[in-house]
Amino acid sequence: MAGGQAEVWGQLVARRKFGDGTFHGIRYQVLCIISISLRLNILCLLITIGIYFSTTRVALRNTLLMAFRRSCSDLFPVGNARIRETSTARSMINGAMNLSEKVEPLPEEFDPKEIVSPVALELNGVLKECADKSREIVLGRNVHTMCYTINEPEADDDITGEREAYMASVLARYRKSLIERTKHHLGYPYNLDFDYGALSQLQHFSINNLGDPFIESNYGVHSRQFEVGVLDWFARLWELDKNEYWGYITNCGTEGNLHGILVGREVFPDGILYASRESHYSVFKAARMYRMEFVKVATLVSGEIDCADFERKLLLNKEKPAIVNVNIGTTVKGAVDDLDMVIETLEKSGFRDQFYIHCDGALFGLMMPFVKRAPKVTFKKPIDSVSVSGHKFVGCPMPCGVQITRLKNINVLSNNVEYLASRDATIMGSRNGHAPIFLWYTLNRKGYRGFQKEVQKCLRNAHYLKDHLLEAGISAMLNELSSTVVLERPKDEQFVRRWQLACEGNIAHVVVMPNVTIEKIDYFLAELIKSRLSWYGDGESKPPCIAGDIGEENCCCSRHNT
Amino acid sequence: MAGGQAEVWGQLVARRKFGDGTFHGIRYQVLCIISISLRLNILCLLITIGIYFSTTRVALRNTLLMAFRRSCSDLFPVGNARIRETSTARSMINGAMNLSEKVEPLPEEFDPKEIVSPVALELNGVLKECADKSREIVLGRNVHTMCYTINEPEADDDITGEREAYMASVLARYRKSLIERTKHHLGYPYNLDFDYGALSQLQHFSINNLGDPFIESNYGVHSRQFEVGVLDWFARLWELDKNEYWGYITNCGTEGNLHGILVGREVFPDGILYASRESHYSVFKAARMYRMEFVKVATLVSGEIDCADFERKLLLNKEKPAIVNVNIGTTVKGAVDDLDMVIETLEKSGFRDQFYIHCDGALFGLMMPFVKRAPKVTFKKPIDSVSVSGHKFVGCPMPCGVQITRLKNINVLSNNVEYLASRDATIMGSRNGHAPIFLWYTLNRKGYRGFQKEVQKCLRNAHYLKDHLLEAGISAMLNELSSTVVLERPKDEQFVRRWQLACEGNIAHVVVMPNVTIEKIDYFLAELIKSRLSWYGDGESKPPCIAGDIGEENCCCSRHNT
Repeated sequence: MAGGQAEVWGQLVARRKFGDGTFHGIRYQVLCIISISLRLNILCLLITIGIYFSTTRVALRNTLLMAFRRSCSDLFPVGNARIRETSTARSMINGAMNLSEKVEPLPEEFDPKEIVSPVALELNGVLKECADKSREIVLGRNVHTMCYTINEPEADDDITGEREAYMASVLARYRKSLIERTKHHLGYPYNLDFDYGALSQLQHFSINNLGDPFIESNYGVHSRQFEVGVLDWFARLWELDKNEYWGYITNCGTEGNLHGILVGREVFPDGILYASRESHYSVFKAARMYRMEFVKVATLVSGEIDCADFERKLLLNKEKPAIVNVNIGTTVKGAVDDLDMVIETLEKSGFRDQFYIHCDGALFGLMMPFVKRAPKVTFKKPIDSVSVSGHKFVGCPMPCGVQITRLKNINVLSNNVEYLASRDATIMGSRNGHAPIFLWYTLNRKGYRGFQKEVQKCLRNAHYLKDHLLEAGISAMLNELSSTVVLERPKDEQFVRRWQLACEGNIAHVVVMPNVTIEKIDYFLAELIKSRLSWYGDGESKPPCIAGDIGEENCCCSRHNT
Repeated sequence: MAGGQAEVWGQLVARRKFGDGTFHGIRYQVLCIISISLRLNILCLLITIGIYFSTTRVALRNTLLMAFRRSCSDLFPVGNARIRETSTARSMINGAMNLSEKVEPLPEEFDPKEIVSPVALELNGVLKECADKSREIVLGRNVHTMCYTINEPEADDDITGEREAYMASVLARYRKSLIERTKHHLGYPYNLDFDYGALSQLQHFSINNLGDPFIESNYGVHSRQFEVGVLDWFARLWELDKNEYWGYITNCGTEGNLHGILVGREVFPDGILYASRESHYSVFKAARMYRMEFVKVATLVSGEIDCADFERKLLLNKEKPAIVNVNIGTTVKGAVDDLDMVIETLEKSGFRDQFYIHCDGALFGLMMPFVKRAPKVTFKKPIDSVSVSGHKFVGCPMPCGVQITRLKNINVLSNNVEYLASRDATIMGSRNGHAPIFLWYTLNRKGYRGFQKEVQKCLRNAHYLKDHLLEAGISAMLNELSSTVVLERPKDEQFVRRWQLACEGNIAHVVVMPNVTIEKIDYFLAELIKSRLSWYGDGESKPPCIAGDIGEENCCCSRHNT
């Protein structure tokens, strides 16, 4: 078409310019040549543009794909599942991947049965149904029926690729639900904002720091270099000299508490464990596991340990050493026990040198050092161990924690284990070697300054949330040093689950982590306020009074709102 | 240049063809036009070819890069480290990534100081040196000096990208060392042969199965669907009905043993723990942690529990229930305690209903069901719990394990923890949600049949290794049901470390896992035989006698070789 037009145009130009005089033939030939060459040029140009755009499109698609993969570490099934892979990738590019964008909530509770129908399984001649209603339900919902059953592969699965396709489909669906769930998360102190794309290259290795981090075992695929780097960083943060500390990277906050309390018990075998009643449940578990005498101490309304009660109880047990769990941020209210007052109480009750202090700093252990007015957690005070979670403020794909203790205490605990060519001072034997690399990566990128900035942001946002809750007439409390906003428990369990709020009695909490932005808070507030209208708008049912939990001044119930 | 040449060529053609006659001017013009249009055409063609090749090259590079990334899950740092990223990727494409290919061993022990020089750090006005020699060394080598120090980022790091580049370089170097170390690994029962590329897409999420796997907590980013699928699979394997089992995915073999023994103690609070002296060290640790009475039972040369000694010790403590740890594969010799004989001994000693059996099946718990002659581990026998490691025979990037126990026992242990909306029956609180997905993925792909094949291969290869060791005059033993080959401890510690052999006294072992191929075994054998010549070739020093550990018939020392 373009060629034809060019020819007509060439002829027209020729007629107009040269008229019908002599040299018509030659002129016509010249014009024809010009016309042909022009056509050729245009053709070339079109081909060029065509090739350019087609390749650019490929390049563009590849760039998009790669950017997408980079940003979400998205590597897809190998082998036969490739077909599915690209279509999944494309659909994700179309909008599903961006966590900060609005994601359509899944139509209802994610039902895996849509993918995996409960298959009747025959094994050893016995037919077994997947559905199972008889299991005892203690609290929450029983999820046994909600499982991705593992079926024996067919003999020809390698050829048909059906199995790979099935698994890829389960994973893609699961991933989508994770995106949605991550977006609507507020209740647990997990920083969900991290990017470890750079570390995917290590997923291929079975990294195991079995045994002591400071003594290399014979197993070579470890990450002790990173682990020790991370431990040094934390020891510096809590001001314990490199020659005087020992520590390791644990699997979670519970392991830190189990370790701290165990070391305490080994140092003082007949010591009594003291902890406030708002301590993490792992502290009570430790007492039971270790068969220790345990004394529960009362708390103030804020959630802090009540040092008057602590003193009374210490004086009742003067003959035995004290092993004290100090909460650097309680689980529910984010209350920080006053470390200085705890030490003072111990000393004035006559426990000089006869006490061991473990600081459970699961979340705030890493935030407190960056809050100016906070009482300092430091080994310059007579404390013995500090634990902090790695998946909380730092953010990590799997739970992990950091445990720092005084080296002199460890020699009491450790046994030599020749098999490992290492001493046995950790609770777990094999230890996840990926976690230290995740932590190392984030600490290196952010540094002390980076954390300080994030802590400030969280505290600011927490205040924003608390202020707006109170403005809207919703009972709420925020401890001064905390980013945990305690509020009245939403009436509807569906709402609680949608926002994944942690609840206890009539209260719930939102933990403002670095990934909880003002936008997210506004979104939550708007939804809560709207929902409350439907719960309490009729004037018949009323919001609960939670003055007992958060104090009268923070309660907005009909009695205290006046 | 091309244009100039075309013009000259055009003029030459014009001179030759038309001479210097009439219409020279017109002809010359025509030729000029032709020449110009030709030049334009050639130019267009060159541009087209140029664009085509340049884009093809980009596409080719992208394809290669993506294929490479897909195959090794290699995603690189974002942001400023991109420059480094491509060069790393390219160098990896050049051959470093294939685990099965020969990898040049690193020049010597991997020294991170090449990258990270020990920097003197100033914090709070105190100058601290990284090197530290005063730390107590118990066994093995102290690795505190071998650490990747975390330095505070410079203010302009975001702009210069130096930090990203530094981290990318550390990671690339580390990855290379992991490849080398993975290649030369024989001593630990970890299957290093896995490909979880399909799961990298989930690394972006903080997946946490906190609390009980069967009761959904409010935290929505979990993987209970996968966990319960895996648990069901194992319950089927060990023949415990879905309504009668409880279990969870642990962090490692130690957690399994800690859990099994704790449940035992809760069922029989005054029970005595019995375990053979070759049990895993975590069993002894549990006894100490839980303050339990503990009786150590003797073993046979094979490493199995000595039931005669067991009976004697039971009869001394008839008044108290027995909590028995049965080894389904001991750590060092891979010896399998005879479960049937243990039960028989208990019953004939009068412990009817007064015993609790925990089976520590760290490695062999998953292999045994596929070995025909092996005594069966099944809940149809009066056992109470079984634990197995996930990172061992299955293969997993991080340690994990599976714990299966009778549901009725769990109700003794569990406490309600309202905070989690879950009962507390696990040792750890927060639990790695990625591990269940890894296990689910492998179990689904391989199935019971796939594992059976791999078990057979391992046993075959283990026999191959043992036979060739004995043929070469090297003391070696292989228990009938095991893939753990026990051999004389190599004299040179450098050799032990190179092959990452686990050692105890004069013996070492090689655990033949699915990734230990005949080629790898041959490579190891050749190196061992050659090294032994240099150790013992002079006739002065002699290989140790290890008849006490493995029996006279397996010992090749000068005394028993006759």
